[in-house]
Order: sequence, then C-alpha cells, then structure tokens
Amino acid sequence: MQRIDFISLVENYKVVFLDSYGVLKNHKGLIGGVPETIEYLRDRGIVVKILTNDASRSRQQQVELFKSLGLSGLTTGEIITSGTLARLFLEDKRIKGKIGYLGTENAAEYILHIDRDSIPIGAIDLENCDDVAAFVFLDDEGFDWNIDINKTINLLRMKNIPVVVANSDKLYPVSPRDVAVGTGGIAKLVENILNRKFIHFGKPDSQMFMFAYNQLLKEGQFSKSEILMVGDTLHTDILGGNKFGLDTALVLTGNTVESSVDSLVAATGIIPDFICKSITS
Amino acid sequence: MQRIDFISLVENYKVVFLDSYGVLKNHKGLIGGVPETIEYLRDRGIVVKILTNDASRSRQQQVELFKSLGLSGLTTGEIITSGTLARLFLEDKRIKGKIGYLGTENAAEYILHIDRDSIPIGAIDLENCDDVAAFVFLDDEGFDWNIDINKTINLLRMKNIPVVVANSDKLYPVSPRDVAVGTGGIAKLVENILNRKFIHFGKPDSQMFMFAYNQLLKEGQFSKSEILMVGDTLHTDILGGNKFGLDTALVLTGNTVESSVDSLVAATGIIPDFICKSITS
Amino acid sequence: MQRIDFISLVENYKVVFLDSYGVLKNHKGLIGGVPETIEYLRDRGIVVKILTNDASRSRQQQVELFKSLGLSGLTTGEIITSGTLARLFLEDKRIKGKIGYLGTENAAEYILHIDRDSIPIGAIDLENCDDVAAFVFLDDEGFDWNIDINKTINLLRMKNIPVVVANSDKLYPVSPRDVAVGTGGIAKLVENILNRKFIHFGKPDSQMFMFAYNQLLKEGQFSKSEILMVGDTLHTDILGGNKFGLDTALVLTGNTVESSVDSLVAATGIIPDFICKSITS
Amino acid sequence: MQRIDFISLVENYKVVFLDSYGVLKNHKGLIGGVPETIEYLRDRGIVVKILTNDASRSRQQQVELFKSLGLSGLTTGEIITSGTLARLFLEDKRIKGKIGYLGTENAAEYILHIDRDSIPIGAIDLENCDDVAAFVFLDDEGFDWNIDINKTINLLRMKNIPVVVANSDKLYPVSPRDVAVGTGGIAKLVENILNRKFIHFGKPDSQMFMFAYNQLLKEGQFSKSEILMVGDTLHTDILGGNKFGLDTALVLTGNTVESSVDSLVAATGIIPDFICKSITS
Repeated sequence: MQRIDFISLVENYKVVFLDSYGVLKNHKGLIGGVPETIEYLRDRGIVVKILTNDASRSRQQQVELFKSLGLSGLTTGEIITSGTLARLFLEDKRIKGKIGYLGTENAAEYILHIDRDSIPIGAIDLENCDDVAAFVFLDDEGFDWNIDINKTINLLRMKNIPVVVANSDKLYPVSPRDVAVGTGGIAKLVENILNRKFIHFGKPDSQMFMFAYNQLLKEGQFSKSEILMVGDTLHTDILGGNKFGLDTALVLTGNTVESSVDSLVAATGIIPDFICKSITS
Repeated sequence: MQRIDFISLVENYKVVFLDSYGVLKNHKGLIGGVPETIEYLRDRGIVVKILTNDASRSRQQQVELFKSLGLSGLTTGEIITSGTLARLFLEDKRIKGKIGYLGTENAAEYILHIDRDSIPIGAIDLENCDDVAAFVFLDDEGFDWNIDINKTINLLRMKNIPVVVANSDKLYPVSPRDVAVGTGGIAKLVENILNRKFIHFGKPDSQMFMFAYNQLLKEGQFSKSEILMVGDTLHTDILGGNKFGLDTALVLTGNTVESSVDSLVAATGIIPDFICKSITS
Repeated sequence: MQRIDFISLVENYKVVFLDSYGVLKNHKGLIGGVPETIEYLRDRGIVVKILTNDASRSRQQQVELFKSLGLSGLTTGEIITSGTLARLFLEDKRIKGKIGYLGTENAAEYILHIDRDSIPIGAIDLENCDDVAAFVFLDDEGFDWNIDINKTINLLRMKNIPVVVANSDKLYPVSPRDVAVGTGGIAKLVENILNRKFIHFGKPDSQMFMFAYNQLLKEGQFSKSEILMVGDTLHTDILGGNKFGLDTALVLTGNTVESSVDSLVAATGIIPDFICKSITS
Repeated sequence: MQRIDFISLVENYKVVFLDSYGVLKNHKGLIGGVPETIEYLRDRGIVVKILTNDASRSRQQQVELFKSLGLSGLTTGEIITSGTLARLFLEDKRIKGKIGYLGTENAAEYILHIDRDSIPIGAIDLENCDDVAAFVFLDDEGFDWNIDINKTINLLRMKNIPVVVANSDKLYPVSPRDVAVGTGGIAKLVENILNRKFIHFGKPDSQMFMFAYNQLLKEGQFSKSEILMVGDTLHTDILGGNKFGLDTALVLTGNTVESSVDSLVAATGIIPDFICKSITS
C-alpha cells in the first residue's frame, strides 16, 4: 500500500477504470480538476472506462448528465453500468412473459428496453399474475415504499421466478451529511424477509469488471496488468478490482477519508495497491 | 416430538403461556372454539398468560380488542407484550432527553407513556437534535417509509444513542395470502445499512419469558416444569420456550402448517416437545 | 458515557457483577490490585458476583483457581458460569438418553454431572447412536479437531436432537499476542455448515444475567438500579448488561484498550454508561 | 423448469460445462454410464469442460485420477479448477515475499508452483514473519486443525495481507452418509473469527465461468446461449451458471435428490432451466 499522487501513478498504465460518484463527482457536482485530468489521460492515450453501480439512467443519459456538469466528450462506450449487466442477463435468459419491476418508468424504459413487456409492481394484479416471469429491482424511487415493497414480497412468495438486482449498492450519499437507502438495500430487506438470494449486479462482483475488460478488448490488446482500477470505496471498487486481478488505487474524495483510511483498511482486510488523495493531483 | 390433542396435554400443567396471533386469532378474528378452550382452562384452574410480540397497543387495548372479537374476561395482567419490555428498559436506563420513535402516536402514548418526552422521527430536526437521547422502533405504521426510514438512518449515523426495537417480528400475516414487513424487519434494514446491532425485545428472547415467569411468581409458586408454552412459530415461540426451559407445544393454526411441519423441524433443528392441531381440539 | 474511577463509581451501588477474564485476571495471572479491590467491596458490604462464559470447570474448580492465583475467599455462590446454565437447561428438558459432547472429561463430569449418561463424540458409534438424545459443545479441548468436528457434523445431520453451546465465546486470549478459537467459535462453524441454530448460553444473553439476579434475590432485596455490571468486552458484558437494564462500566484491562475504545463504541453502537481504566484504581 | 432426459437436451448445445463430483463421479467412483456419455458428446462434436471447485491437485493429476477411475482421454485443457484461478490471482498480484498456506505440500507444489516461495503455516515463525506477503487456504488436509487454524488466525491478526481461498466449498461428501468440512468451511470459520472477508475462488462466482468461457473462445466462436451448465448443486453450479447467463441443468446423482428437489428450488429461489435424472440417460 503505497501513497502516491495519481498523475505519477497513472503513467504506468494504458487503461484506467474509474468509479463515478466520489471519484469524478460528488453531491455538489464535478470534483474540481476532473475535466483537466480526463483531458490529460486522453492526451497520453490512456483509455478511460467509467464503472458505475447505477440502473436509473441509460448510458446516453449518463453522458448528458456529465456534460451538464461540465465534463464533455464522454461516449456511451466509455460507460459501464450495473444496469447494463442486468439487462443483458434478462436478454440471455430469454424470459417468456412480463418483467415486473420496482423503480421508475425511465429506468424501466432504458434498462429493460422497449422489446420487453415490463410492468411496475404497482400495476401488477396479485390475483392474476401468471404472466410475470421475472422481477427486477431497478431503483429506490418511483414507487410507494410501504405499499410496493410489501407487494413485492407477496408477489415473490407466490411466484418462484428469477429476481435481479440491477444495482447492488446498499446506500448512497445525498449530501455531505446524509445518505439514502439504495436499490441494493431495499433488495436486501426483501431477501432477508424471504430468506432467499437474488442475482445482484454491480461492483464488487467480477462480472462488472469482466464486461468492462471485454469491451476494452474490442478496442485493442490489453493485459490486466496494464489496467488501474480507481475508486473511493473499499468494499466495491477495491475489493472487486483486486479480485479481478487489477492494480487498485483508493482515492480520498468520497466514501473513504484521510482520517480513517488506515483503520478501515486494517479492519476490513481490503488492501488497495495505492492510495491517492484524488485523481486531480 | 409427540403428536397429542391439546386438551389431553394441558391437564399435565398448571400454567399455559399462549402466543396470540396464529393460536388465539387469525386475520378473520378469533379461531373457532378459543373462548371455550380458555373457559376450560379457567375451570381447571390453569393459569393463562398471553405472550405477544406487539408494541402497537396498550395492554388495555389488547384486552378490548379480544373482547370485541368475542373473547371476554381477559385481564391486563394476563397479557405480556414486547412493548412492555421496551418501555421498562427505557425506564431502567433513565434516559435524559427525548425519545425519538418510528411508529404511531398511539403506540408512543401507550408504550412510551406520558412522563416521557417523546418525538416522532418526522418531527425531529436533524440540524438540531442534541436532545434526542434514545430511539425506539415501535410500529410499521404511522410514518412515511421512504422519507422517515432514511431520516432514521441519518439520525442514527449522527448520534450514537441507545436504540430499542419494541417488536422483533420481521413480518406478520395480513390475510391468508399476504404478509407485511413488521417492525423488526424495518429495524433489520436499518441495522444492516448501519452495520450495528440494536436492542431487540420479544420472543424468542429469554427476557419475554423471564418477565412472564416473574409476573407468574407474584401469583403463586410455580416451577418451570409446570408451564407449557404454546405457539404457532418455531423461531419465536418454540425456540424461546425451549431455551427458557419450558415444555413446548406447536399448534398448526398459524404460521406452521401440517404439510410442512416435519420438514421445517428437520431443517431448523428447532424441536417442540409436542405438536397439536390447535388449542381447540 | 462518563469516564470515572471505579472506586468512586462503585460507592453508588449495592451489587457488582464482574466479568472474570480481562477484569480480574489475564494471561499472566491476577491483575494487580484485584485482591485489594475485592476486599474493599466486601468491607463496604457490596455484594460481588462473577459472571463468566466458561464451561470447562466446576464452580469449585473456579474458586480454587482464583485461590491459587492469589484471590482467596471467593465462594461457589459468587460464581455464575455459562456452563451452569447449560446444565440446568439439560436438567429441565429431562433428556431421555445419552448426552453426547465435545470437550474434556473434566468438563463433562462437572458440567453434565454424574447422574447423566454422557458420552464424548469420539466414543459415539455413528452406526448405532439411537440412544444419543442431546449434544453439548463444552470446550475447545479434549478432542481431535479434524476428526471430531467432522464426526459431530455427521451425527447432527443424522439426528435432530437438542444442541447446546455451553460457552458462546468465539475466541479467547491466550497471550498478549495470541488468541484461540473458543467453544462458541467451533459451534458457529458447525451451525454454519448445517445451516441450523443451536441454543447458546453465556453473556450477552439475558439468561446469564437473570440467573445471577435470581441468585442475588435469595440473599436479599435488590433492584436492578442497584447493580453495576463491569466488563472488558462490549459485545458480551456491556451489551448484555445494558439489555438486562443494569448500569454498565467498561474497563480497559482486557479486550478493549484505551486507544480504540471511542471508535469501537461508535462503530458498534454499544454504549457503556461508564468507562473506568480498571477496577483497581 | 422442465424435466427432460440429458441426451435429448444436450443436442441443442455446442458446449457442456460439467461439474465433477455428483455429476461424473461419486464416492464409489465413476457414475455408471459416464464414459459412454462423454464419448457420445465427443462423437457429436460437443465441447466438454469440467468446472470443479478443487485446489488439492494439479489439472494433470485430475486427468490421471479420472483415467484411473475408467474415464480416459480427458485433457488438462478440459479441466478448470478453482485452484487455477487462485494461482492466477497470485501471479497477477505480483506478491513480493512468501506465500503462507494451509494445506498439503502437493497442493502447494501444483497450485502455487515452483517459482513461488511458499511456506506451510506450520513452518511460519510468528515472531519473525515479515516476509509473508500473502496467505492461501488450499486444502482441508495436511495440517493440524487445532494448532494450525489458531496459528493462521494469529498470523492474520498481525499481518494485513491478501488472503485467498482456493476452493470455496464449505463441505464435501465422503460417503453416502458422511460429509467433511471443506477448505471454504475452514476459511469461513477464520473470517467469522476475524470479521474479515477473504477472496474466494470457485463456483458460484462468475470468474470460474468467465475463465472457462475465455478458454473456450480460444478454440472457436461460441455464444453463451450455445453452452449448457450441468451440475448437482443449486448454490454453486446452478446459481453460478444462471448468473453468467448460461442455460442450466440440474442432475439428481449427487447433492440434490429427487425427493426434495422441488422444495429446495422453492426454498432457495435458485431455478435451473432443466432437471435431468443424470447425464447418463
């Protein structure tokens, strides 16, 4: 575990995988200096991929959101979301029937896509739901928590169908002080009540890294040792990057802060190869 | 594990501890024959105590509810609720400050009582909450799940105060088909997000049985071997009764049904001494 | 959470419940000054009870061990062990058949007693074990871990019998540097493999405190508010004492040390009423 | 979930991924008819890959073991073991120092390889272990459980180094009646004691499937929909295959048996696409 500034470190790699929230942006917007760092990486020919646990927006919407914050020039091919993996899973599984979901219509439209017959939990009739063939936890918004979480539990008690969690994050920051329960936290509640395990997508799971790596191989020949994974969270970014066999760098601009980084690494046993203050210095 | 009819079994005991939901009543009202069984017990001089995981009503309200369903003559002294234990805990701990809570005003009034300065989570100002000195999960109703569960999480991230779960049931039945997430399930979500353990009251915890037993000793001299614990749920009634050293009888009028009782006992390793179809035969 | 010296604090109580390891003694022997503190408590008429998670020795052997270390005058009535609770449980349950066990012969003799037909796991014939009616995890010594833990798992896969863990401690210190897996840790491995929950005795479970309190009431009238629980471990001594409604004091002579006490209290949410350096100052 | 005979089913695929124990062999040796089935697959040009959670033997030793049981003609390229993944991880991580391990010398030789400086836990000096830079759980044999598991715990308390579990199976069958704690079970005990999470390799983790798939792509172009995953265990073979996006077939010649398959699928929510009696009919 070596402390080093990001700019010196990144020279040794041909590719950087970047987490989004806590690395590129925070609740106030872009982290200062990020556009300059991204431009520096592009100038050096270092390939950038953004790996984010998110199933609420399309990749195109992600690109536009970054643009509105002041980071232009990203392409959809540079963004890998857990929602994409959930969608591919459902396509591979060739589900015959409707896909029930918990989340917003926007998420359903962009994640589940138009060729799918999807239905929000609120519109499912529990007396008559033979045609619901899979279920997806998409987002923590777009439904009534009390009514619709209970309805989801009762649906899944009746029907033994594949259940997918399109974003495994248990909580996410909404301000410097406050967090909110995320899609993964709601799914965990339901798993706990039902005593079942759903299929979760998102870091630290290897599939997210594998997907990014396979995308990368379409652009050229890269070995894992040429990739640096950068994130602000030990349990997702660093654990997942380590396991996939990448070098990992923890930045201190998000979930993990200077004052507790050493004790957290010791307590969790999740060890980044490098610690950098931020990606902008 | 012996199959026997309840009336033959109960003759061997001086006291019966009865679970409420699934033993005395279900979603439709009283289970048929229950008033007659209770009368039979009284005629034989067998002491009755009802042990229920509930923190939404006062014991007087419980008595009245049973009366409205057709079971008269219960006294508050015959009812032991997990809410009572939570209240006693808060009294013993001599909390100096307000007690925040998640639940209904009725629950707060009856469980936390008037001499306490209690405040619902919705009324707490997170910018100014120095005076909140403890927090209680009282009920699954009386608040906005999305807004107020998240607010509870943020309150408890800021303030390291005693947190009490006044009813540890994770879910409860609301119809023959449907269940709902209970107070204990909501508390579990928050514990999972915060990675902390709260203080839970209710079966199977020994304190509920100890409290009932101590109440009993005020009425006379009884040994544990003279008490039969009767319930419909392996993980609460039977596990708790077994551990406290009581003989236990599982009835099949609630959570556990004839068709799966053998496989459930084998899978959980929770073994009742007796299995009875119901307390009414 | 108030920092105070023990001698000033204890004046306010009529009874102290003391953990043993980390409070009275450590790997080197008695903690310096302990005999004087105990004498001081006796002089002031403060009742002493030692609550220890241990099922390897009889209470008489505990008294003798303390004496050999230099603390004389303890009586068996002052010592409450988790092993005693396990034994009472097995007596209450009126097990008909042999009690299998994992542990030493000494533990079996003193914990399970002579009127019981007990048999070590090594002597059980899995082809012919119809007469084994209960099983007890007694100690982490006295058997071959590889052979006998696997044999225990296979016995319990075949036979659905009550299983008791007579000491729930997962690990214990053996030197300033080293720990060892305890009885509770071995039981946890077996529970994890079998996906079952055994009946555990020992702090933080309320039964240990209830038993001590009931013993106390035979000696006089004491309210819970007159008792101080003192221990070195948040998860057992303090959590258990808090839940039982006692005032709690954490000492820093064992598992919890000055440098990390604040962060541990914050991380666990287990809050002692008082923090004392030791019981000897 | 469709019941179908394997021979009819397999015609629809170009590749089969086969679990080993419970599919190809059991405690008595090869399952009857397996050599004929493998020959049939070869005749039809269906590619075979064996995916096994094992870190005790080299792939060459696996080939020889199958040959000695009567299944000739397997090649090392057809065998994917969790041990291989663990080895690759350690190579990618470019560990500088010795790799400590729990297991047999044979496992260390074949899994960790000669160019690594590896050292069994028994030979590590805890007073002088600065040069131990990683640790691997390789096997459940080749060490003293009591002494060496405790020593492993103390080593890992002192040193915050990457820890790898080369076979995540918690238990494995040793006879029709008996099971034994596996490498994954021992690792779980240590994780539970230390409250840390190690890096586990083996099904159901996606990396095992990804590795097999990448090996496959070196031999030709195959889409996931052309691959059938076949196994006897819901939690590893089926869960992992499902998540990776393969069609899955559960066979009833190992861990899962006809009498309980329906209730197990319902209880776990892990749903194979197909159920076959065996791969030999």
